[in-house]
Amino acid sequence: MACLYLNGVIAEESAARLSTEDRGLLMGDGLFESIRAYGGRPFRLGAHLARLRASAEVFRLRVPASDEEIASAIGELTRRNECPEAYVRLTLTRGAAARGARLDVPREPTFVIHARPLTPYPEEQYRRGARLIVSRYRQSSASPLARHKTCNYLLYLLARQEALEGGANGAVLLNELGQATEEAFSNLFIVRAGRLATPPPHCGLLPGIARAAVIELAATLDLPCDERPIPAGELFEAEEMFTTNSLMEVMPVKALDKRPFAVAPGPVTARVMQAYRELVGTEC
Amino acid sequence: MACLYLNGVIAEESAARLSTEDRGLLMGDGLFESIRAYGGRPFRLGAHLARLRASAEVFRLRVPASDEEIASAIGELTRRNECPEAYVRLTLTRGAAARGARLDVPREPTFVIHARPLTPYPEEQYRRGARLIVSRYRQSSASPLARHKTCNYLLYLLARQEALEGGANGAVLLNELGQATEEAFSNLFIVRAGRLATPPPHCGLLPGIARAAVIELAATLDLPCDERPIPAGELFEAEEMFTTNSLMEVMPVKALDKRPFAVAPGPVTARVMQAYRELVGTEC
Repeated sequence: MACLYLNGVIAEESAARLSTEDRGLLMGDGLFESIRAYGGRPFRLGAHLARLRASAEVFRLRVPASDEEIASAIGELTRRNECPEAYVRLTLTRGAAARGARLDVPREPTFVIHARPLTPYPEEQYRRGARLIVSRYRQSSASPLARHKTCNYLLYLLARQEALEGGANGAVLLNELGQATEEAFSNLFIVRAGRLATPPPHCGLLPGIARAAVIELAATLDLPCDERPIPAGELFEAEEMFTTNSLMEVMPVKALDKRPFAVAPGPVTARVMQAYRELVGTEC
Repeated sequence: MACLYLNGVIAEESAARLSTEDRGLLMGDGLFESIRAYGGRPFRLGAHLARLRASAEVFRLRVPASDEEIASAIGELTRRNECPEAYVRLTLTRGAAARGARLDVPREPTFVIHARPLTPYPEEQYRRGARLIVSRYRQSSASPLARHKTCNYLLYLLARQEALEGGANGAVLLNELGQATEEAFSNLFIVRAGRLATPPPHCGLLPGIARAAVIELAATLDLPCDERPIPAGELFEAEEMFTTNSLMEVMPVKALDKRPFAVAPGPVTARVMQAYRELVGTEC
């Protein structure tokens, strides 16, 4: 029977239940993190927790556990659930606090940690690349939510659904200026003339942990990497494109709408994929 | 002990618990309705349920009960909880369905009905009017969520918090064109030269049930009412302003930012408030 962590206690999932008054459920009043564990060791847990705590400050939430307690809970869950290769999710909500609009810092937030066997993306997809579409939905760069990993995820779910119904794997969201922001569940990089480029957070996107790792790696690979706005049109002029997230790491893009890329993974993407796996090997 | 309705069963609230896997909790993957009951009779339940079912279609959800079952559950809850004057909330989520992006119509959605004693707004506020601010947050008119009552409510919570911290009662959200959309938890009307005006849904707002009732009432009161975009600047030129929602009905606005209205409630607002209460008396 799978276990989870709920408010300080490791419990069987079937026994762990939440109030129907939880503000996470009623209003999406919460935050989350998705973390990949390798051999039982979460990749860049510190960066995930720093992001969670920074966003919690903005939304007047409170993480009711120390970094050490969280690391220890993740270790115990991956052991008990026998999933050293794990998808770990932290979910933090305002709990079953009072109704109404106030964002009072909760005395009793809800804090859940799930650790599940990772369902790996098909190797085939890494070899051949993913198909993306440009979504008809827009992300507003002015949204105060765009730069945080909040439980308000319906926009991304709609965009991904649009992609799936069109036979694609993912959807690129543009902002109100027609600039690329991110793929619904991952960050976006392009390669042009030997340089990497990825949109900056002010365009309206979540700055991912895998994205930050790739920016770091680019420096060690002598690969110039620009954080700059990318107009939609430029996506179609790129030589290579890839997406990043903590669970699927670095995924080559094979085609955007009807535009195929010459080769996927292209040579630059292949170097980044390889370097990312080496980084994981070093750190985990 | 208060009761609620959960997936077809009336249960004690303390015993009713949800899975930590509920997609409402994890991703805000759900919808809700707020309904006011008078003497045990919900006002315009049919309109609320029609809206819920229409939005459920858009988000590929499923309301797992007939209108009759829902009406009967509300009646039982207001009796058992001894709250003929009630705040009734329906919450519908995709349930503890599979992880991942797919918006599959759920076989087992989560459907909760809460009925609680209504906490009335202070009569003082109806007599003197509410203070509003223009929020620094923007609503995107292009957002596919703006016209639905989804559980993605963090933007509205942030805006209302901004108002409360500024000593005001509510916050008007503008869209990316600088047009008024709605107050964070209610719809907005202005009065100019004897005419009512309220922004249309395409500006980026939820078309409320109380808003629709006021538009109907205006016709019976020989009060012209225009659904049209309202630039932010025009809000400051209005003679009167009021907000509407199902719980607080019609609320006069006393001031917007530093601009006080000459009289609150103004004469037109007072007629609408009176007519709304008569309508409730007739229907409930």
